Amino acid sequence: MEIGSATQENTRPISRGCGWLKALPGKFKAKGFEIVTKTKKLGEDDPRRIRHSLKAGLAITLVSLFYYLRPLYDAFGQSGMWAILTVVLVIDFSVGATLCRSLNRGFATLIAGALAIGTEHFATLFGEKGEPIVLGFLVFFIAAASTFTRFFPVVRRRYDYGAMIFILTFSLISVSGYRVEKIFELGHKRLSTIIIGAATCMVISIFVCPVWAGEDLHNLVADNIEKLASFLEGFGDEYFKFSEDGDSAMVSKDDNSVLQDYKNVLNSKENEESLANFAWWEPCHGRFGFCHPWKQYLKIGVLSRQCAYQIETLNGYINPQPPAPSEFRRKIQQPCTKLSSESSKALKELASAIKNMTHPSSCDLHLQNSKAAAEELKIALEASPPVKTDLLEVIPAVTVASILINIIKSVENISASIHELSDQARFRTVKSNVIAEKSQLFHSGTVKPISDGDGGGGGGDGGGGDHIVIIVSPENGNPQGLMRSQHVEV
Amino acid sequence: MEIGSATQENTRPISRGCGWLKALPGKFKAKGFEIVTKTKKLGEDDPRRIRHSLKAGLAITLVSLFYYLRPLYDAFGQSGMWAILTVVLVIDFSVGATLCRSLNRGFATLIAGALAIGTEHFATLFGEKGEPIVLGFLVFFIAAASTFTRFFPVVRRRYDYGAMIFILTFSLISVSGYRVEKIFELGHKRLSTIIIGAATCMVISIFVCPVWAGEDLHNLVADNIEKLASFLEGFGDEYFKFSEDGDSAMVSKDDNSVLQDYKNVLNSKENEESLANFAWWEPCHGRFGFCHPWKQYLKIGVLSRQCAYQIETLNGYINPQPPAPSEFRRKIQQPCTKLSSESSKALKELASAIKNMTHPSSCDLHLQNSKAAAEELKIALEASPPVKTDLLEVIPAVTVASILINIIKSVENISASIHELSDQARFRTVKSNVIAEKSQLFHSGTVKPISDGDGGGGGGDGGGGDHIVIIVSPENGNPQGLMRSQHVEV
Repeated sequence: MEIGSATQENTRPISRGCGWLKALPGKFKAKGFEIVTKTKKLGEDDPRRIRHSLKAGLAITLVSLFYYLRPLYDAFGQSGMWAILTVVLVIDFSVGATLCRSLNRGFATLIAGALAIGTEHFATLFGEKGEPIVLGFLVFFIAAASTFTRFFPVVRRRYDYGAMIFILTFSLISVSGYRVEKIFELGHKRLSTIIIGAATCMVISIFVCPVWAGEDLHNLVADNIEKLASFLEGFGDEYFKFSEDGDSAMVSKDDNSVLQDYKNVLNSKENEESLANFAWWEPCHGRFGFCHPWKQYLKIGVLSRQCAYQIETLNGYINPQPPAPSEFRRKIQQPCTKLSSESSKALKELASAIKNMTHPSSCDLHLQNSKAAAEELKIALEASPPVKTDLLEVIPAVTVASILINIIKSVENISASIHELSDQARFRTVKSNVIAEKSQLFHSGTVKPISDGDGGGGGGDGGGGDHIVIIVSPENGNPQGLMRSQHVEV
Repeated sequence: MEIGSATQENTRPISRGCGWLKALPGKFKAKGFEIVTKTKKLGEDDPRRIRHSLKAGLAITLVSLFYYLRPLYDAFGQSGMWAILTVVLVIDFSVGATLCRSLNRGFATLIAGALAIGTEHFATLFGEKGEPIVLGFLVFFIAAASTFTRFFPVVRRRYDYGAMIFILTFSLISVSGYRVEKIFELGHKRLSTIIIGAATCMVISIFVCPVWAGEDLHNLVADNIEKLASFLEGFGDEYFKFSEDGDSAMVSKDDNSVLQDYKNVLNSKENEESLANFAWWEPCHGRFGFCHPWKQYLKIGVLSRQCAYQIETLNGYINPQPPAPSEFRRKIQQPCTKLSSESSKALKELASAIKNMTHPSSCDLHLQNSKAAAEELKIALEASPPVKTDLLEVIPAVTVASILINIIKSVENISASIHELSDQARFRTVKSNVIAEKSQLFHSGTVKPISDGDGGGGGGDGGGGDHIVIIVSPENGNPQGLMRSQHVEV
């Protein structure tokens, strides 16, 4: 995937001889069809792209009125072009990005304009011959210094566009001030049209089908955690797949495809950071207040990637050659699958807690279950020293078990950081309203009762998203069994 | 580090009461000192930043001559501002980025200008009242469609700036054509100044202290491999550190800092892809021809990251609690350290082969040595089944051994892709000129002779960057022993 994106240009042979001329109409047709298909897919994948394009068209058409309407043209003249220029440069996919550029543009123009007028006046003190020299030197110095500020991380992250507009406006106004008489009037008209252009973009961006960077970041972080969960959900079954004759079956690449989603998490850093930067500019909207802790999402992102790195190593052990002997794998299969599936459930709970903005209280149980499974796994390993078989043959399985145990720590870290987020963003607390379906659950044979410290049994079943909780009777404090819960928001 | 960059803004308390007013001069002084320190560090870290800033200042000052020189101002008038605007928008740190923007700007302006004049003429057919309506509709449609093309991956990667300039120029010219009579003259002047501005940037960028994105990519990929090598070089000693009383010593965080460089490799994707895109635009320069295989660097980058993910997992096993028993660790210490150190040497050879653009032939020996060490390690594991101790206690050490063995595969993949790069980019072949220092080496006691299939002995010594090669006598084809080699380029 990664390489593909970079190499797709070179898949066509460069020289095809002269025969291609004859095939041109057919090729054009095929190319046209390909473009239509790709366009359709781009639109279907994210319909907000179509809406953004229409919004950009609308904004440009609106500021064109500076030319179309006589009174506006009489008032602003050719300065109307600055409104068009501003709209094209400023409008962006998300509200945050548009606001970042609009506000940067507005303030940078204002500051640079004032400085440029001052510089121009200062330069006039040096007489007709000295003016262009002093002006040239000042423009060189200020442009070079401003260019250097763009290397500061904080400027690059948040004010890069502002720095560029500062250099642009400063150079334009101070230099053209050398020839233009009414520099104040020019500056005033230009600033007005720039403000009108930027305001048009901001209004359209916020009020016409807004795309919030903050919401995108929120969903991205939750989706990434869900992708890790999906891997862990399927891993147990995939690694301990046995064919009918008892040997572990070869894992086909196709079957594996559902387990590959986590790979997107590995390289999510840049995307998350850019969304967090844009989210910083956004006003409160929907479920997100003014001081929403966007930085905490970056922290969760870092921890998710750390978990993804371990999963990537784990993924290398699927389909090992030669496989470890089946008897040993069978012994550790149940605790490993349970550990993996319970970690997956915990992650799913965490992802759903972020999505619904609820306190992730119910994930703790799954974490406890996965810790119990880890204990079980350790007991299984302890109980079966490879006396008959040698250590060498069981190494891959032992490594898988060891990495799985380490993954619990990663999940705990993710859980802790989401608890922090929940406190900072004041997620709603959810109360488990337990519907007793004891008999049904107990008879299904897939879920067994668990008592304190017992992580065993057949709880490895990964199906269903319902919450399994232990009901503590108020009379004696003993666990009564497993129930299916429903969330009630308070 | 990662979170730090995002959270550094919030370290200052928001409300300090009114006392801060009194402390203002001192605070200003401290802030000023901080800025000076940071500026100095930015410049010292990469002096090219200072040169780039001066180059940008120079380019802007040069195109300001459109205003300062009377003949130029008479010829181009206010259109001179387009040269300044072009320079500010187009000049970038690397030659590739500047060329990308310059050429995009030039061609997009040309195409959009022609289309805009055509559109404007077409709209005049609809009479005075119909013209603004038809024009408005066409501008809306073309602006929206062009905005949508920016979502295509290939456009986003290479022509995003061109698409933006297309929208800008098309809207500006077609709309202003409604009011401006001499639209051809306007377009001609504007295009000329844009071309002059873009050409100024290209010339300065290429001929004044050029910064080549291709060279940066080349060095980045080599540096990343070297960082992986540094980790593996130090890992053996770090993991098997023993205190004087025989127990494994606690690894202090400070000692660990030299092993953390590889973390930069984990998130290098975005940087590598952007450099590769810019490198695509660059003409041949220095050691890089016109069709230098930049995409191959991305492939090496992907494989380096895969190795870095395994190293990240391995890093989690440094300083384990509780440590595995020392007797078992001592048994696997030598082969593990040797495996790690030989893999490190292979990676260092590969990095140096990229840097010097020489065929990486000598890395194969280190790869063979690390494979031999892996075999040794397997034998050590096989020979010492944990009968007295139980399996549980040796799990971390077994996992480390297993991951180390897997890392050889990663190093092999990296080696194969660098061999491909070497073939594609025609790296020079290097012949080993062996200086016989047999007796000296044999007496030093650090290197023992090896024969085919024997990876044992004391070859685990990680010091020194000299190449150890087996000399095959032309008479009988038998390995004569280990020699130190020197590279002679042919």
